[in-house]
Amino acid sequence: MTAIHSSGCLRPELRTMPSVPYEGDRDFSRHVDEMLTGFLERKSSEMPSVAGELVREIAVLLGGGKRLRPLLCHLGWLGAGGERDDRAALQAASALELFHIAALIHDDIMDRSDLRHGVASVHRRLARYWDDPAQPERSEWFGVCSGIVAGDLCWAWSEEMFRTCCLPDAALNRAGAYLATMRTEVMAGQYLDLHPPVGFVSDWLGYAEQVNLYKTARYTVARPLQIGAALAGAPAALLSAFQQFGERLGLAFQLRDDLLGVFGDPSRTGKSNEDDLREGKRTMLVATALQYADSRQAATIESYLGNAHGRTELDCLRAAIAATGAPDRIQEAITETSRAAIEALHGAPLNELLRDTLIQLAVSLTDRAA
Amino acid sequence: MTAIHSSGCLRPELRTMPSVPYEGDRDFSRHVDEMLTGFLERKSSEMPSVAGELVREIAVLLGGGKRLRPLLCHLGWLGAGGERDDRAALQAASALELFHIAALIHDDIMDRSDLRHGVASVHRRLARYWDDPAQPERSEWFGVCSGIVAGDLCWAWSEEMFRTCCLPDAALNRAGAYLATMRTEVMAGQYLDLHPPVGFVSDWLGYAEQVNLYKTARYTVARPLQIGAALAGAPAALLSAFQQFGERLGLAFQLRDDLLGVFGDPSRTGKSNEDDLREGKRTMLVATALQYADSRQAATIESYLGNAHGRTELDCLRAAIAATGAPDRIQEAITETSRAAIEALHGAPLNELLRDTLIQLAVSLTDRAA
Repeated sequence: MTAIHSSGCLRPELRTMPSVPYEGDRDFSRHVDEMLTGFLERKSSEMPSVAGELVREIAVLLGGGKRLRPLLCHLGWLGAGGERDDRAALQAASALELFHIAALIHDDIMDRSDLRHGVASVHRRLARYWDDPAQPERSEWFGVCSGIVAGDLCWAWSEEMFRTCCLPDAALNRAGAYLATMRTEVMAGQYLDLHPPVGFVSDWLGYAEQVNLYKTARYTVARPLQIGAALAGAPAALLSAFQQFGERLGLAFQLRDDLLGVFGDPSRTGKSNEDDLREGKRTMLVATALQYADSRQAATIESYLGNAHGRTELDCLRAAIAATGAPDRIQEAITETSRAAIEALHGAPLNELLRDTLIQLAVSLTDRAA
Repeated sequence: MTAIHSSGCLRPELRTMPSVPYEGDRDFSRHVDEMLTGFLERKSSEMPSVAGELVREIAVLLGGGKRLRPLLCHLGWLGAGGERDDRAALQAASALELFHIAALIHDDIMDRSDLRHGVASVHRRLARYWDDPAQPERSEWFGVCSGIVAGDLCWAWSEEMFRTCCLPDAALNRAGAYLATMRTEVMAGQYLDLHPPVGFVSDWLGYAEQVNLYKTARYTVARPLQIGAALAGAPAALLSAFQQFGERLGLAFQLRDDLLGVFGDPSRTGKSNEDDLREGKRTMLVATALQYADSRQAATIESYLGNAHGRTELDCLRAAIAATGAPDRIQEAITETSRAAIEALHGAPLNELLRDTLIQLAVSLTDRAA
């Protein structure tokens, strides 16, 4: 609640999350923050004053985050020969963060998450504007409803920020096709994540892999790289290499996220290490644990997953997952998939500096503790 | 559930709602239906098969509706000199229906509405895919979550349908600015509707009027007309006349909606005449009733509004509103505001045929029973 100006926009010095290390341009995160701040200030001034509450809470969420998708978009742009300081391209890249915020706000509602980037999630904070202590359920529902609206606004604004960045129409149309695909994919992945189809119940690994491909691998890595590359007019060979690299790195990134979601330190990750277990998410980690569990471990996992009450049961569930050896297997898969991602860059039409930057990024994303 | 092909797309012959009468082109609704069907079929084929459920339920909702925003966009286009049979412009106009569907899906979640266009609302239908009779609250929450996703998808697809209509980039950019404004406004209006700000509690009429301006008048009439007009390169004088006409007609349209929402026949309107009362909406109708109520009527309204249990209390609330004379006053306001809307077209650079069509439309929209 403190990370905002009275105008409702974010104060970059109070960012709650570190950005991804990117040696090529230390100013990148600052540029993105400035772009987002300026855009939110303009939008805030166009709204009726009461809706300033929404912008304030959106700004708090925007104050955190790693700026990962803007960074990948920027690297895709550079990889295809774009200028480092092109402000139009920086605005287009920043728009992806606003889209991500939209997805996070709605995702946190669906997952009933209390925490995001180390502070209360947007729908929880918005609930506080409905002051009726006698009926807490009305306040909670108000938070859900206004969170839906806040997400819709960010969704619309990300499009507006992207379209008004002043790059040529042809560039926006090329990249816009990837942006449209990305949106459809992430929502398809979200639905899959909500509702395992009947055919999958005997194949949780296959299911988790499909969720990861749609909801994370393409959304987080492949499409942002391709959007940036398409903005700069990349050749088909580079777009294709980015797809291969992005899907593999994105998968490894999600596997790391699965591990952190159960075994991470909330004071470093900024999010709960209980939500996935409480919600009963069928992640690759859980699917692997079930595959290798003995009958006692399997019984513990099946009985507590999505159904754990209190710290003791959660600890018991966590210990059963660890005892199957699944965390080590997931760690091996992260190493192997990251290596395959890096291999996909061989032979791609990329200069050495960019290739090295992408490799460093791959290492930092899959070897992180936050 | 029957208004769809097995492919998940709508069968125009099973539309549950009449379209707005539009003498200028009897084929208009059919064109819009075909455009929407074709687009949904393409999107469906790009999704993992399980997400076909989402598309199916979106198609059911799309099977109803008056196509009002596409029609106004089309009339704005014609008014500014666009060609009647231009398929690109028809696609851009159809995209507004998809945006409207997105807004309706999220709106029905927030209002907890069971019914829309005479069939179960999207989140209620999606809830049926979660088959767990022992835990109905999980099924209900699944409906809410997948309804959020369905709305997000329609939101994204409306943008894609608009951007890929093949009109020149300059036209799309001109109209895109109105589209962006429309989205921000409707969400600001939605938030206002959710949360009356403290300053308004002594001025419910002023509050309801501001909600109407943002959530309906501009969204439903003014912006669609301006989007169509901007696509065709309208002069500033026409865009300004459409703003005046649209805001006034939109206000009258909403006042009619307020009346139908309480006194309408659900078999004709396709939606409940109890939801507004149950939710305790501070519409212009309710605000007017409170302004003219005697102390007994005011006590009845204040005690049952948003708090009515069962048919008897709802009837009692409805009777109290009627007894204040508010319905007649709202009817007078409809007549007066419609007249002011039509006056705004005087002197606008419009041909006689278009002006007459808009006047007929104004009459049909404000004099309707469905």
